[in-house]
Amino acid sequence: MNTIGSAVRLTLFGASHDSRIGCVIDGIPAGVLVDTNRIEADLALRKPAPGIGTPRVEADAPEISGVVNGHTTGAPLVITFANTNTKSSDYEELRRIPRPGHADYPAVCKYGVDHDIRGGGMFSGRMTTPLVAAGAVARGMLDPLGITVGSYVSRIGRVADTAEYEPATLAASRTNPLRAMSEELEALMREEILAAKADGDSVGGVVRCMATNLPVGLGEPFFDTLDGEVAKAVFAIPGVKGVMFGSGFAAAAVRGSENNDFYRMKDDVVQTLTNHAGGVLGGMASGQTLDFSVAFKPTPSIAQTQQTVNLEERSDAELSVHGRHDPCIANRGAIVVEAMTALVIADLLIRGGYYG
Amino acid sequence: MNTIGSAVRLTLFGASHDSRIGCVIDGIPAGVLVDTNRIEADLALRKPAPGIGTPRVEADAPEISGVVNGHTTGAPLVITFANTNTKSSDYEELRRIPRPGHADYPAVCKYGVDHDIRGGGMFSGRMTTPLVAAGAVARGMLDPLGITVGSYVSRIGRVADTAEYEPATLAASRTNPLRAMSEELEALMREEILAAKADGDSVGGVVRCMATNLPVGLGEPFFDTLDGEVAKAVFAIPGVKGVMFGSGFAAAAVRGSENNDFYRMKDDVVQTLTNHAGGVLGGMASGQTLDFSVAFKPTPSIAQTQQTVNLEERSDAELSVHGRHDPCIANRGAIVVEAMTALVIADLLIRGGYYG
Amino acid sequence: MNTIGSAVRLTLFGASHDSRIGCVIDGIPAGVLVDTNRIEADLALRKPAPGIGTPRVEADAPEISGVVNGHTTGAPLVITFANTNTKSSDYEELRRIPRPGHADYPAVCKYGVDHDIRGGGMFSGRMTTPLVAAGAVARGMLDPLGITVGSYVSRIGRVADTAEYEPATLAASRTNPLRAMSEELEALMREEILAAKADGDSVGGVVRCMATNLPVGLGEPFFDTLDGEVAKAVFAIPGVKGVMFGSGFAAAAVRGSENNDFYRMKDDVVQTLTNHAGGVLGGMASGQTLDFSVAFKPTPSIAQTQQTVNLEERSDAELSVHGRHDPCIANRGAIVVEAMTALVIADLLIRGGYYG
Amino acid sequence: MNTIGSAVRLTLFGASHDSRIGCVIDGIPAGVLVDTNRIEADLALRKPAPGIGTPRVEADAPEISGVVNGHTTGAPLVITFANTNTKSSDYEELRRIPRPGHADYPAVCKYGVDHDIRGGGMFSGRMTTPLVAAGAVARGMLDPLGITVGSYVSRIGRVADTAEYEPATLAASRTNPLRAMSEELEALMREEILAAKADGDSVGGVVRCMATNLPVGLGEPFFDTLDGEVAKAVFAIPGVKGVMFGSGFAAAAVRGSENNDFYRMKDDVVQTLTNHAGGVLGGMASGQTLDFSVAFKPTPSIAQTQQTVNLEERSDAELSVHGRHDPCIANRGAIVVEAMTALVIADLLIRGGYYG
Repeated sequence: MNTIGSAVRLTLFGASHDSRIGCVIDGIPAGVLVDTNRIEADLALRKPAPGIGTPRVEADAPEISGVVNGHTTGAPLVITFANTNTKSSDYEELRRIPRPGHADYPAVCKYGVDHDIRGGGMFSGRMTTPLVAAGAVARGMLDPLGITVGSYVSRIGRVADTAEYEPATLAASRTNPLRAMSEELEALMREEILAAKADGDSVGGVVRCMATNLPVGLGEPFFDTLDGEVAKAVFAIPGVKGVMFGSGFAAAAVRGSENNDFYRMKDDVVQTLTNHAGGVLGGMASGQTLDFSVAFKPTPSIAQTQQTVNLEERSDAELSVHGRHDPCIANRGAIVVEAMTALVIADLLIRGGYYG
Repeated sequence: MNTIGSAVRLTLFGASHDSRIGCVIDGIPAGVLVDTNRIEADLALRKPAPGIGTPRVEADAPEISGVVNGHTTGAPLVITFANTNTKSSDYEELRRIPRPGHADYPAVCKYGVDHDIRGGGMFSGRMTTPLVAAGAVARGMLDPLGITVGSYVSRIGRVADTAEYEPATLAASRTNPLRAMSEELEALMREEILAAKADGDSVGGVVRCMATNLPVGLGEPFFDTLDGEVAKAVFAIPGVKGVMFGSGFAAAAVRGSENNDFYRMKDDVVQTLTNHAGGVLGGMASGQTLDFSVAFKPTPSIAQTQQTVNLEERSDAELSVHGRHDPCIANRGAIVVEAMTALVIADLLIRGGYYG
Repeated sequence: MNTIGSAVRLTLFGASHDSRIGCVIDGIPAGVLVDTNRIEADLALRKPAPGIGTPRVEADAPEISGVVNGHTTGAPLVITFANTNTKSSDYEELRRIPRPGHADYPAVCKYGVDHDIRGGGMFSGRMTTPLVAAGAVARGMLDPLGITVGSYVSRIGRVADTAEYEPATLAASRTNPLRAMSEELEALMREEILAAKADGDSVGGVVRCMATNLPVGLGEPFFDTLDGEVAKAVFAIPGVKGVMFGSGFAAAAVRGSENNDFYRMKDDVVQTLTNHAGGVLGGMASGQTLDFSVAFKPTPSIAQTQQTVNLEERSDAELSVHGRHDPCIANRGAIVVEAMTALVIADLLIRGGYYG
Repeated sequence: MNTIGSAVRLTLFGASHDSRIGCVIDGIPAGVLVDTNRIEADLALRKPAPGIGTPRVEADAPEISGVVNGHTTGAPLVITFANTNTKSSDYEELRRIPRPGHADYPAVCKYGVDHDIRGGGMFSGRMTTPLVAAGAVARGMLDPLGITVGSYVSRIGRVADTAEYEPATLAASRTNPLRAMSEELEALMREEILAAKADGDSVGGVVRCMATNLPVGLGEPFFDTLDGEVAKAVFAIPGVKGVMFGSGFAAAAVRGSENNDFYRMKDDVVQTLTNHAGGVLGGMASGQTLDFSVAFKPTPSIAQTQQTVNLEERSDAELSVHGRHDPCIANRGAIVVEAMTALVIADLLIRGGYYG
């Protein structure tokens, strides 16, 4: 279904080529500051990177209701965006000839002939626009507790950024067109993307996300854990194939004495010497930085000819995806990961009685 | 909270050293066969491996109500287990001196002095016993659709099993004490575990899980996706640090032309030549095998002396965890991953109208 | 919260004097016919009765998205309405001087200074406009099963309609400005309302609602019962103070031998000789007509001077409510009761596996 | 489904003639006092009235887990009861020959041959035992806020108690076998019941329930209103046919000037001169006593011969219900109404951030 969250609930609506897309956010307490500059700043990070991304450019101007005098009223917020730059004629044949790596085939099986296939319908990356705006609203709930959420691109194809960063420094990636942490890395990553693009191809990437100052204990075990809720939210982002916290899969290869994070008392605050746990223990915030990585697959839309099938004629077919697409989505996905994380944290803050 | 699922809902209760632990499973239609042999067979796979695991051995004899004449009645099922082999005196000091890598510290912060710390309370791996039994019940719902769920251990510490297996062959791991796919691998993995144990240490591991014959389209996007629901369910298992589908993080390093799974029509059935997607596209089952991997960290309880803090005295402290623990939990975790997967599939089958 | 339903979920948004109000309806299967004529016909029944109701007249022109070729797509539907005819200056003082019988006082206590008080904010009867449209959409799901939902006004003030009607005849009330079942009753009821209005006063009323052809067993006991879900949905309608099924409170005064509905087999169909149960047994549809009554209180906004308080000065105050109000809301409420009932039935149909 | 509540969630399990019945209560914060004397005192009020009720007497001894040192731990509470005094042979023919006024017929249609028909299965009044115990636990959450919940029987058949009582005086009914407010009324009501019983018949009744000291604003509009949540919870009680708040259906017959509750400031507290609203405005607690009435139908099980059908032979049949039944359930239902109310309030307290 199209609702996520329990105490702070987001309901997503619209489709890639519908007249409007948007979301309702319910459960935000009255009096939260809604900062339109912040919303627009986050939306800007979702736009295609100049010289790289899709030529489909939308104004992405949010229309917000449910706000009076710049603050929430206790009633739901609604944020919508007009879809203007649509070319629906591109898509009708996808109902018969599904694109490899896309939702076309299972969507047609699930929803039948009535499915809105235009532009990928509700499976389009376009649906993440309202999510980013909602995440910026959720940040307004995190501010009073000093909670920050940031991210950067730690890998594009074969180019990996293996450095360790302090959470406070991640904001640097916000001024970088690829969400990289340095101009040098950005240059290498851009090259990796452009090389793929030149071949009519695409590349994958990894986003690393960090959140600070979470109250120790945030999360609602046994099942509504901090890591589980983040993972579920992040898997809703188109193209995500993996999520891991802290050392993640690397932890499977080492010993407990290496992986355990030892405690030390520092200025009367409990700290750990390392953060292999990625800030979550027993499904709850541990007091260390929440630190996780998200794998994005290469954009499935590529210009190269691909093998597919014709569902009507029940035969093999070939397909070259035209339309307007990004050769890499990880850089645009970073702010979406942040947004989903901010929403999950806001929800768990309310659920755990940590807010207000 | 302690409930998971929407149409098929499991509520977990009890604690490691409570008199009983168990679960309620609501939403299973009337008439589903409840096979106690299958429940016991799955529970056996959760027991400590002989010569390796914890000496705490529980009878794990399920008491089931809500079943009449071997079938569900439409009312909730309740499955409970007595806790008999408990040594609560071991644990009281953990309220003051938290174990590194355990939930002790955030749990005390969250629940305060009333938290049941004995044996890890509700954060104990013991809580997975009812989950395994519930998973075996859920399998009864999958049978009529021909859906199978299997798994094996693909890594223990430095020993990795990189072979590819057909889903039908995974049953071989059910007769292997470490859930390995061969005696050779089992010997190497056992050695890895025993070496750690000899050092008062532990090791991590990876479980790979596969499910077949899912109806194409299974999953409820935008948010209640097949991958997102599986991920959330799996992160509830103590010790899990990462989940990835198909190529997962490896997809981030390659190109779309390599990662896309091309379609071919074979005997009038849509197939793919590869399964890098791990059987999920757009959050829905793609028609290929659902294929994902789960990273387990090394057991945090180790005999070696570790650095920690004394929360009462607000000072540094040292700790050597006694009690009875497994030097590796991935092998015991495999059947829990299967159980959570079966529960998620059962839930999504009902939600999607695919069942009955 | 502003979401109702489990499988078919409606999320309501906006406020009386916001730019737009509307709702998202999620979970409606792909392929359901969305009949805009029906939506407009139902919306017309919510409009103020000529010569009686509030002079605030809104165009109530629904803007619908999520529909392609007149049918649902499996994605959420969004229905919005512009608010144009608003006079917000009327309301600001209500934050300090709450109107008796209105939500003003508890809303200010709950949401504080940020509450949107204009026009009653989200507590306005205006919020029922999207509900009526959503109910008309839900009827599209009931059609294939032959389920009908109708209602009429059985009481306005002292004028009671004590006749018994067949469900099929209730459509007659749709052409009657007060939703009465005859012109004679309409004349008496109109007189009752106009007399109150002439005194600067208002009157209450009762709506009786019936739904036919529900599948026997519809409802999800123990808690998500047919009657409980209808009751919860109906209490969300502003002004509702009571709900009873079949004989309702009268059943409390009689004996079991009088109240039990005896079964008879008629043309191989199980029938009852009476329907004191109102079509619900054990929280499930009994196979008889679902038959319940809903009490609406008199409109709390009256021109007469009333005693209230000044919350700022902590003193007694007096108030005469100006603005534009209906002297009776039961007649306009009838279609809202139908809409909520249709939504609850659609939800329970999906949940019970009765649909599609 | 068998779960109710959002932040405080109760899951009910078992059936009338199952080995055990019980419930899980999740979401109760750590540190709430669990008073077993109070639980037993409330359970005693559910027992059959001496000389009147069913001879089926159960020990009703609760077994509680999830409590350490008399307080909740943050983990779920489980309360179970053994079913010992069962005579299942009485019931098998009800699958073919449904009892008028019971759930037998819709239950068989819904759940099929696998439905547990013994003793009414999960539709039995027996299922209310764990609810009463859970309500007593919920009261432990209400104590720190000074919230009380009480009730009395205001009608049995033709005997009505029309007096008005202060909430504080309702405790008097706890020592009265019929939950009447005076010995005189109790004598009249007893006579009414015994007269019905002598005729092989039964009678209905009304329970009036009051709750005090609710925080102004309690409730989560638009849909999760205080009145709507109470109504839904109360309709889950077997035999309930109507719920009304304050003046309820009587409000439909009067004018706004009579029905509005005027505000007065008294000792700097906002009070109303009357409480026709029953303590709820706009779906939120108004600050006055929550005051509502619940109609119970006459027990459908009566000894008199009744007309029914034989579902197997598709023919008319006759039935005289033997077994062990109460000639009136309203008196036993009073404490169940209180319990459901306490649970709803506890849930809304957490949801609204009013607790802890």
